[in-house]
Amino acid sequence: MSVTAAKGFTAAGIAAGIKESGNPDLALVVNNGPRRAAAGVFTSNRVKAAPVLWSEQVLKGGEVTAVVLNSGGANACTGPQGFQDTHATAEKAAEVLGGHSAGEIAVASTGLIGVLLPMDKLLPGIEKAAQALSEYGGEKAAIAIKTTDTVHKTAVAGGEGWTVGGMAKGAGMLAPGLATMLVVLTTDADVEAPALDAALRAATRTTFDRVDSDGCMSTNDTVLLLASGASGTTPGRAEFEQAVQHVCADLARQLIGDAEGASKDIRIEVINAATEDDAVEVGRSIARNNLLKCAIHGEDPNWGRVLSAIGTTRAAFEPDRLNVAINDVWVCKNGGVGEDRELVDMRYREVRITADLAAGDESAVIWANDLTAEYVHENSAYSS
Amino acid sequence: MSVTAAKGFTAAGIAAGIKESGNPDLALVVNNGPRRAAAGVFTSNRVKAAPVLWSEQVLKGGEVTAVVLNSGGANACTGPQGFQDTHATAEKAAEVLGGHSAGEIAVASTGLIGVLLPMDKLLPGIEKAAQALSEYGGEKAAIAIKTTDTVHKTAVAGGEGWTVGGMAKGAGMLAPGLATMLVVLTTDADVEAPALDAALRAATRTTFDRVDSDGCMSTNDTVLLLASGASGTTPGRAEFEQAVQHVCADLARQLIGDAEGASKDIRIEVINAATEDDAVEVGRSIARNNLLKCAIHGEDPNWGRVLSAIGTTRAAFEPDRLNVAINDVWVCKNGGVGEDRELVDMRYREVRITADLAAGDESAVIWANDLTAEYVHENSAYSS
Repeated sequence: MSVTAAKGFTAAGIAAGIKESGNPDLALVVNNGPRRAAAGVFTSNRVKAAPVLWSEQVLKGGEVTAVVLNSGGANACTGPQGFQDTHATAEKAAEVLGGHSAGEIAVASTGLIGVLLPMDKLLPGIEKAAQALSEYGGEKAAIAIKTTDTVHKTAVAGGEGWTVGGMAKGAGMLAPGLATMLVVLTTDADVEAPALDAALRAATRTTFDRVDSDGCMSTNDTVLLLASGASGTTPGRAEFEQAVQHVCADLARQLIGDAEGASKDIRIEVINAATEDDAVEVGRSIARNNLLKCAIHGEDPNWGRVLSAIGTTRAAFEPDRLNVAINDVWVCKNGGVGEDRELVDMRYREVRITADLAAGDESAVIWANDLTAEYVHENSAYSS
Repeated sequence: MSVTAAKGFTAAGIAAGIKESGNPDLALVVNNGPRRAAAGVFTSNRVKAAPVLWSEQVLKGGEVTAVVLNSGGANACTGPQGFQDTHATAEKAAEVLGGHSAGEIAVASTGLIGVLLPMDKLLPGIEKAAQALSEYGGEKAAIAIKTTDTVHKTAVAGGEGWTVGGMAKGAGMLAPGLATMLVVLTTDADVEAPALDAALRAATRTTFDRVDSDGCMSTNDTVLLLASGASGTTPGRAEFEQAVQHVCADLARQLIGDAEGASKDIRIEVINAATEDDAVEVGRSIARNNLLKCAIHGEDPNWGRVLSAIGTTRAAFEPDRLNVAINDVWVCKNGGVGEDRELVDMRYREVRITADLAAGDESAVIWANDLTAEYVHENSAYSS
């Protein structure tokens, strides 16, 4: 599965020595063609890491031959030297892959902000990774991009004769403008860059963009979609977009399921909103309410905290028409006390909150996590 | 001290039995005149508790004879019955104080959302409180409004012959639009309602409105300023505003110092912003970043998380001109690595973050708290 599920791709994941632990920390994904079309979506954080600034430029050309990804360092807030390091990474990959220019090599990094990468380890690592490239290397690549992820994440979908596969890392800093989420999707469908771009944007808008684990937006978020055309098949537009959507949704759900220190995955569905934007704004406000996130952790169906979160938004609603269900029990009706909160069973990892704005026909789903002592511990006990 | 520091006021704090613990839970503050001018500032949450809806109407008249405050229940999201209960509370106070109408009685409540108040205990409690009214009752009133506060909070300021005193409760849900923060300020200065209103709004804008303990905005925030005129003195406008500002700043600082589960008080100063609004937006974004709040708890000067928080705002800045100091050590210079982070001493409770946007001359200070396992515990272990 992973990035080598689709034909035309090879990948590798190795330990370059960037991480002090000695764990795998460098992944290489290569598109062997015949087509090398690509699309990308990046963090909307205005403080962008060097590899994001680099890869945004690379993607403007619409062609990507290979992606170099490293964990163990974000190369963010590292000034001109950091950008030179990213450039040198792309140059090295172009050199070892032969016959390519650095301008076709995308780079993605994740790890601590504000520290230069150990280039004396990273550059030899690229040579080592190139030697390890394999059409079965997708899993190893997915493992090498892990940071505090407890499991590696892959997904696959497709149609007759063609495939979309992908890998992701997440764990911390998941948030609206995308998280420190590095995602590489590959397909052997024969699709040109503009159609890839449309499919990727449509998919991320309702998947990765609606994951809000901890409200913190990363400097490094990168989602790439590469097409090799190796299947010789061009799927219908709707069919292709659906497959990309499926893989993105699958990976996004895996990110939430493995978020730092989380004990609950919270599915927040806002219904009967006047507009989709209203539904998303309300969903995010609920997703980010620390008091509610603590209550969910404590398996307390504290709907008052849902209402207080809704009340901070600009969405269209009347306070005395709001309804809230937790795990399908309508604990709040018409802005006041509804069904008995004792009926809510919150023992399971997935918790469903439904907020009915009674203001229209639009809806949206946002995924979040609870707030736990483990989250505090993981994020206070050491720099990450 | 407290609300009886100024002449013309009596107060009481008693246990009415609203709290199961038997702790004091009902406070009464009475303005005995000769003037009964008043101003109020309320939560900007659109889901407002019944007492907020009631008191907003009362304040429109510019006259308040008494304030009834209860802890042990927020009377929020309680529908028409909740509003009737607040009305009955005001009626009862007007009756026992004699010769007043309910329309002069402000009401404030704090505690769990979505539960009706036990009126069979609250109404007799008002009689009991009226009997206990005393010009020395300010401390007891301040104690009776506590919820998870560990200490009661009072402050005083003033000039020649006149005084401004006040009490506050806070602890959880402190946030920008004001928190579940109940504050009553009193003065014996002879000041009319419009001047009170101007002084109160000017003061809350830069004090309570810039406290952001946990990003959660309450349904019940209320700040009242009552003037008795009993000193017979009308201070100069600037002098009066300064005294109100002083008392608000003092109480706001006390709220941060006693926030739920906090181990650090974080003073975030944004300097060289293009506009004051920019400075406030950036300060709030830093204040609400859970990853940074965890890092501060861990005494980790993780400036990368400050930059990633700045990057989510719309404020005017260039990423490569940003500077960040933690406890006066400029750990980030020009968007990259600055002075050695090992120089930062974070052992003390107060932590100072300075964010230099290098984009203008405006500044703002936001106060926040760290995120701790104790915060999670307090807010997950029981409903509040």
